[in-house]
Amino acid sequence: MTLTQEFDTIAAISTPLGEGAISIVRLSGANALKIAGEVFRGKNLEEVASHTINYGHVFDQDTLLDEVMVSVMRAPKTFTREDIVEINTHGGIAVTQEILQVLLRHGARLAEPGEFTKRAFLNGRMDLAQAESVMDLIRAKTDKAANIAVKQLNGSLSVLINSIRQEILEALAQVEVNIDYPEYDDVETMTSQMLIEKTAHFQALLTHLLATAKRGKILREGLKTAIIGRPNVGKSSLLNQLLREEKAIVTDIAGTTRDVITEFANIGGVPLELIDTAGIRETEDIVEKIGVERSVKTLKEADLILLVLDASSALTKKDVELLKLSTSSHRIILLNKTDLPEKIEWNQLPEGFIRISALNNENLDAVEEKINALFFAGSMDAKDATVLSNARHIGLVEKALAALTEANAGLAAGLPVDLVQVDITRCWQILGEITGEAAPDELITQLFSQFCLGK
Amino acid sequence: MTLTQEFDTIAAISTPLGEGAISIVRLSGANALKIAGEVFRGKNLEEVASHTINYGHVFDQDTLLDEVMVSVMRAPKTFTREDIVEINTHGGIAVTQEILQVLLRHGARLAEPGEFTKRAFLNGRMDLAQAESVMDLIRAKTDKAANIAVKQLNGSLSVLINSIRQEILEALAQVEVNIDYPEYDDVETMTSQMLIEKTAHFQALLTHLLATAKRGKILREGLKTAIIGRPNVGKSSLLNQLLREEKAIVTDIAGTTRDVITEFANIGGVPLELIDTAGIRETEDIVEKIGVERSVKTLKEADLILLVLDASSALTKKDVELLKLSTSSHRIILLNKTDLPEKIEWNQLPEGFIRISALNNENLDAVEEKINALFFAGSMDAKDATVLSNARHIGLVEKALAALTEANAGLAAGLPVDLVQVDITRCWQILGEITGEAAPDELITQLFSQFCLGK
Repeated sequence: MTLTQEFDTIAAISTPLGEGAISIVRLSGANALKIAGEVFRGKNLEEVASHTINYGHVFDQDTLLDEVMVSVMRAPKTFTREDIVEINTHGGIAVTQEILQVLLRHGARLAEPGEFTKRAFLNGRMDLAQAESVMDLIRAKTDKAANIAVKQLNGSLSVLINSIRQEILEALAQVEVNIDYPEYDDVETMTSQMLIEKTAHFQALLTHLLATAKRGKILREGLKTAIIGRPNVGKSSLLNQLLREEKAIVTDIAGTTRDVITEFANIGGVPLELIDTAGIRETEDIVEKIGVERSVKTLKEADLILLVLDASSALTKKDVELLKLSTSSHRIILLNKTDLPEKIEWNQLPEGFIRISALNNENLDAVEEKINALFFAGSMDAKDATVLSNARHIGLVEKALAALTEANAGLAAGLPVDLVQVDITRCWQILGEITGEAAPDELITQLFSQFCLGK
Repeated sequence: MTLTQEFDTIAAISTPLGEGAISIVRLSGANALKIAGEVFRGKNLEEVASHTINYGHVFDQDTLLDEVMVSVMRAPKTFTREDIVEINTHGGIAVTQEILQVLLRHGARLAEPGEFTKRAFLNGRMDLAQAESVMDLIRAKTDKAANIAVKQLNGSLSVLINSIRQEILEALAQVEVNIDYPEYDDVETMTSQMLIEKTAHFQALLTHLLATAKRGKILREGLKTAIIGRPNVGKSSLLNQLLREEKAIVTDIAGTTRDVITEFANIGGVPLELIDTAGIRETEDIVEKIGVERSVKTLKEADLILLVLDASSALTKKDVELLKLSTSSHRIILLNKTDLPEKIEWNQLPEGFIRISALNNENLDAVEEKINALFFAGSMDAKDATVLSNARHIGLVEKALAALTEANAGLAAGLPVDLVQVDITRCWQILGEITGEAAPDELITQLFSQFCLGK
């Protein structure tokens, strides 16, 4: 890598902006202690021991801004491997902003999104896959997604990728060695045979890894889920049950509270991104309201359809229409209102429907099982496997696998080894983009720009 | 105080919930180190020095939850005067919740809102007025409001109240002394005269303090402000200027992002709570849309009206109607669009209007000055004064003043000293409710319940 990054001292608010008990303003860089020391009254920060917490006050000239605790962590045992100062304030938007501003006036530069983590990467504290997992961890919508991210942060994916790359490198070295000893007549055949075995082995490794990707991606990004049904079948009760407070995940996108709010339900660790919930909340009449055209669009957008029918009444024309509309989707048919006497013609329905009572929160576990069956074929509990979850990584593994497949086919067809060597080297290179060892500067810049501020 | 609080170990998430770079889960209590130590792998937390930061990992049994930095602060030099452990995680909702849950499973109790600060109060680290200022600081909408809060946190109001209470106590003691020496004939007259002077002096002190209350309350809570005007006079440009990114304050109420969002503009440190902005954003036609009836209601609710007229066109019937409607409100008339040739009959307008160009951000400073003139009579910059800002404190000072006024009037009318003594003692007691020295348990419980979680 030939990045020429200027390592000036950066500052940012590192806690979510809002009315919380504690906010943190973070500084990283050679002047972190000096700059913090200029606005802090308490112990001399340039003299305190590393990894200590120091009580005092932050001043803007003679105006007291806040009573604070200042954490001092000296390079290199820090997140960025630079000197880090974290000012823990009493929280609140105005005062935290004021403290950030005074640090900027004393010579810190406002950090770009992801710049702290970028420095951690550039200073060799973590590789690119680990750095990306930091953001995945922050954005994780369920414990399962968080667990995948923290494993990756701990290096599980990097170790695997590095070991595959190492094996590839050794195979390539072996090719060179064989070519250097042309005294054996059958060296070309031997090498070709060796490479056929090796590439098949690498193909198997990457295929195995890719098999985890679907699950990983769903856990990371969630399933776009639409709840559909005619009016009064209980969509809004179901919605409320799915979002019931202790499980609901509400995220605001891209930092400003004015933007769209997405609601996620957590079904056995799978984040369901509930779409078009506004309509359900307002009118309980989403299909009526948005019309068939938009319904069809919603159905197309959705990864999963929860079609709600009223078990206590006969099937209506609308029900039949919705059954037909959703027939080619990943769909779960729910017969709701089992708390009432059943009247629905269940024998006219496709198999696999689930009887629930959204009102009494009955049998919703079965929905969880059904989702697992539909999307994970029972692989949800493979606890210790390294899982691919990031779309960038998945794409790269697919490309690497394609290069290997080409190489393997070429060898089988009797192509000369030095031609095939190119493909195998490309595979090695592509895998290096995952860990960042072979990642171009623009990629790195672009990746970190998607991080949140202060990280 | 006879509070019998069980000081078990409490835990809560102390950063605003959201996708931030760092989240903090905080523990306070005798078992804080033990409980944290059970889920942490790294140094032995029970053995590390106080006020240190320790790198390691949090586990739920064998599942790695996050890589963390753990701050250990031992009693009594902590916020609560108990042992405090703060677990700084990588941020994110799911993983932070998981860590909180695992602490709860290991014996911590979920903290009630404000419970950390309540313990700081109960353990004598701060008095009630200081504790309240912690929340004011968090909720402060502008730097000026934050400055008032941090001064109060530092004890400025408490010192003043305590010194007044001390003086009152001394006067009451003097009364006792005089009564104990009845050998002087004129002791009753002398005492009465002394008390007339003293109560007048106390009245002056409290009146002076109350004079700051209006300003303090506005800075703390903001002015409810309505922007009105007929369509196309530039209300939405004005709104956008007032809310321009670097100054806007967006708060979500009561923690859940699903609730109403209030937007505040910061005009020279005064928070303007802009009401009915949704209408302006959507249609630029708020008066048309909401009708006269609701306009009148909005006008009544508002502390301040910004009436926008189009300087580049003649006055319309609607303009005249709005001028009439708002005549008895605190109103600022803005002639907008000075970037265009002026056509408005300005000589028909009441005095004191301001010419602005919302488009070019011209002359909005004059609006700031006008607000100061309307609400603060130029007292905005009394920098060092102790300011009353909290409605509870204002109410108590008013009650104390009323008791004093009654006492003073009684003395002037020749009432016996021992009758008047009761009023003065009541005044002393009421003031004690501000600092919490004479605050009933229910009041304390109720006050802290309004705090945010994790504080």
